Amino acid sequence: VEKVPRSEIRQRIERLQSLLLSRGLSGALIFQNVDLYYYTGTIQSSVLFVPGKGDAVLMVQKNWTRARAETSLETVVPLPKGRRSMADVLRDCGFEPKGKVGIELDVIPADLYLWLCTRFERCAWEDLSPLIRLQRMRKSPYEVERIRMAAGILDKGFRALCGIIREGMTELEVDGHMALIARRLGHMGILRMRGWNQEMTYAHVLSGESGAMSSFLNSAHAGKGTTPAMAQGAGFRRLRRNEPIGIDYAIGVDGYVGDQFRTFVIGALPGPLQAAHDCSFEIHLRFQETAGPGVHCDALYAMALKEAERAGLQAHFMGYGEGQVHFIGHGIGLEIDEFPIVAPGFRKPLEPGMVLALEPKFVFPGEGLVGLEDDYLVTPNGVERITLTDQTVMKVLCD
Amino acid sequence: VEKVPRSEIRQRIERLQSLLLSRGLSGALIFQNVDLYYYTGTIQSSVLFVPGKGDAVLMVQKNWTRARAETSLETVVPLPKGRRSMADVLRDCGFEPKGKVGIELDVIPADLYLWLCTRFERCAWEDLSPLIRLQRMRKSPYEVERIRMAAGILDKGFRALCGIIREGMTELEVDGHMALIARRLGHMGILRMRGWNQEMTYAHVLSGESGAMSSFLNSAHAGKGTTPAMAQGAGFRRLRRNEPIGIDYAIGVDGYVGDQFRTFVIGALPGPLQAAHDCSFEIHLRFQETAGPGVHCDALYAMALKEAERAGLQAHFMGYGEGQVHFIGHGIGLEIDEFPIVAPGFRKPLEPGMVLALEPKFVFPGEGLVGLEDDYLVTPNGVERITLTDQTVMKVLCD
Repeated sequence: VEKVPRSEIRQRIERLQSLLLSRGLSGALIFQNVDLYYYTGTIQSSVLFVPGKGDAVLMVQKNWTRARAETSLETVVPLPKGRRSMADVLRDCGFEPKGKVGIELDVIPADLYLWLCTRFERCAWEDLSPLIRLQRMRKSPYEVERIRMAAGILDKGFRALCGIIREGMTELEVDGHMALIARRLGHMGILRMRGWNQEMTYAHVLSGESGAMSSFLNSAHAGKGTTPAMAQGAGFRRLRRNEPIGIDYAIGVDGYVGDQFRTFVIGALPGPLQAAHDCSFEIHLRFQETAGPGVHCDALYAMALKEAERAGLQAHFMGYGEGQVHFIGHGIGLEIDEFPIVAPGFRKPLEPGMVLALEPKFVFPGEGLVGLEDDYLVTPNGVERITLTDQTVMKVLCD
Repeated sequence: VEKVPRSEIRQRIERLQSLLLSRGLSGALIFQNVDLYYYTGTIQSSVLFVPGKGDAVLMVQKNWTRARAETSLETVVPLPKGRRSMADVLRDCGFEPKGKVGIELDVIPADLYLWLCTRFERCAWEDLSPLIRLQRMRKSPYEVERIRMAAGILDKGFRALCGIIREGMTELEVDGHMALIARRLGHMGILRMRGWNQEMTYAHVLSGESGAMSSFLNSAHAGKGTTPAMAQGAGFRRLRRNEPIGIDYAIGVDGYVGDQFRTFVIGALPGPLQAAHDCSFEIHLRFQETAGPGVHCDALYAMALKEAERAGLQAHFMGYGEGQVHFIGHGIGLEIDEFPIVAPGFRKPLEPGMVLALEPKFVFPGEGLVGLEDDYLVTPNGVERITLTDQTVMKVLCD
């Protein structure tokens, strides 16, 4: 088993403990798969108790053998089914949670919360998720390496698509080929998003006017999809010449996501759309010159918006009309909607170790979607582009 | 837009209203995508209020245009962002929720629950999900037709795989081909599971000993996968001759899932594994003879277990050791873990219109996984097999 290194797990737990103490929390109970994986190295059905001081306790329901093999934590104990005895198990380990205890209020279901209230009457629950999300915002070299591996797969995928995409092919067929390429190279097969009711496939293949269709998704684009039951992604539309084919591709390696977007075309883009693509490229250049530790996310958003306005494209920037969203970038890691958010409301400065996807895009109703999304690592001196693919429109061979 | 027919939506809402009244609930607030889709035809960000009597109100946050086009409900109103004014919006529509009101306690996040408590102080919340799951257990002819379409795609996929699978190919490559086949034919691109923290890819391709690896998943099999961050599904293992290749394939059409499993082999299965496959086939025959309206799910489970015992295979039935699960079938529909559950604890009788996946499987540590999973519709007289694929081991051409 390729497990998360012991040193990673130890540092993450210690850092969480110092955050707990700084907020006056006596401990934390962690339930959600992604957060469990971050602090333990396993997503086997279990509950993690992190006390303010002392060893964390991983209580495992299923699968015991696998959890033991996957985690490097030392205190791993069985948790009988039904969670009935969680308090007893903790007591046996010397812990009696009380006072302010953190739980993930944004992701655990209401019935689990209500159950906890009846079983731990001496606890006052606080939302742990903001702390977790702030901690996970800064990546270790181990984590960055996983995102680089994902970027390597995405680059191979984007380049292979130039030889696969053909006039008359459906969006769905291209999407299927993307899955084949990514899985063959080791994509883990799921894309995780923290936001409630936000769902995604691991690709958007949106051609022509479908690229201008927005949906419930918090994104500049969604596409028609195959059904209102999904309401996004590739559909049965056939690719045509001289129209933009917007391709968003997000895949995971060892849990860590790379998330990138390229504009493809069979032939050439219409002039105004090529100009918008150029503006997207300009925003990336300006970002590379400007961004780095201490620079605020909202300032970076303002810079990008100014570039769009200078090109007279503000009405098309990050969506059109009702579909317009107000961010141009987001953190990536174990989830695709991590901090930081490059948006007006997000007043935090960049810090070394943050990894984010910058995605200036332009939407033209009835015509489609163009743009560039690349992944960046914040370094001590600025930002480093993790994406390996060229920042140009991807030209597909015409027959 | 291919929308859910108006008559479907009307009947579903009316049925929910009669269920609400029978349980003494004054109304229901519905949030989760799948439940929203069932009662409205759209998953656009919105909240549905269903009063005990009168027209349901769909309050839409995003995307307004798309929600209007997708739903056939008549009362569709905008819900300003942040949900602050939900009570105001409802008051404008003539409703003031109070008394016992149903919400989906198993899927809505705790913070949404806590927010509702502060905004609707006169409501006593009750868990609506058991009612919704019981209602959704019986499918309309419209819904069954969607599952038949999914079964059609699965049959094409299974048959195509016989020409694709080759010795030395990785599980991941087979998985990728399955995605390509399914997406090309219109698979909606996501597989939804209601259970908290249960996650799935839309295929398991598990060869040899990987088929005997269980995980956190509530399933007889999980496989190694590519990483503990996913802990299931296809991995880098290469397919070999004369070993079982267990393939679980689940895809969706218009939201509705078909979920089937076939055992593939390059060459021939070892004798004991072929015998176990024969037992799986026998269980299907007995099910087809026995099952129908009025027959209880726990009796069907007992029948299957008895067949396994008669073949001396009870230790391998539905998993091995810690990985053993105690069910042999589950409802399918908009989610893959619907009611009924064919399990000891589930004391309900089958009813016409139920659709379920029956999946007797056998697990041999170090050797692999064999079995057959087919989808069945409960008819007035018995059950009808929806699956189109033959109930044999799928033989792959040897080079």
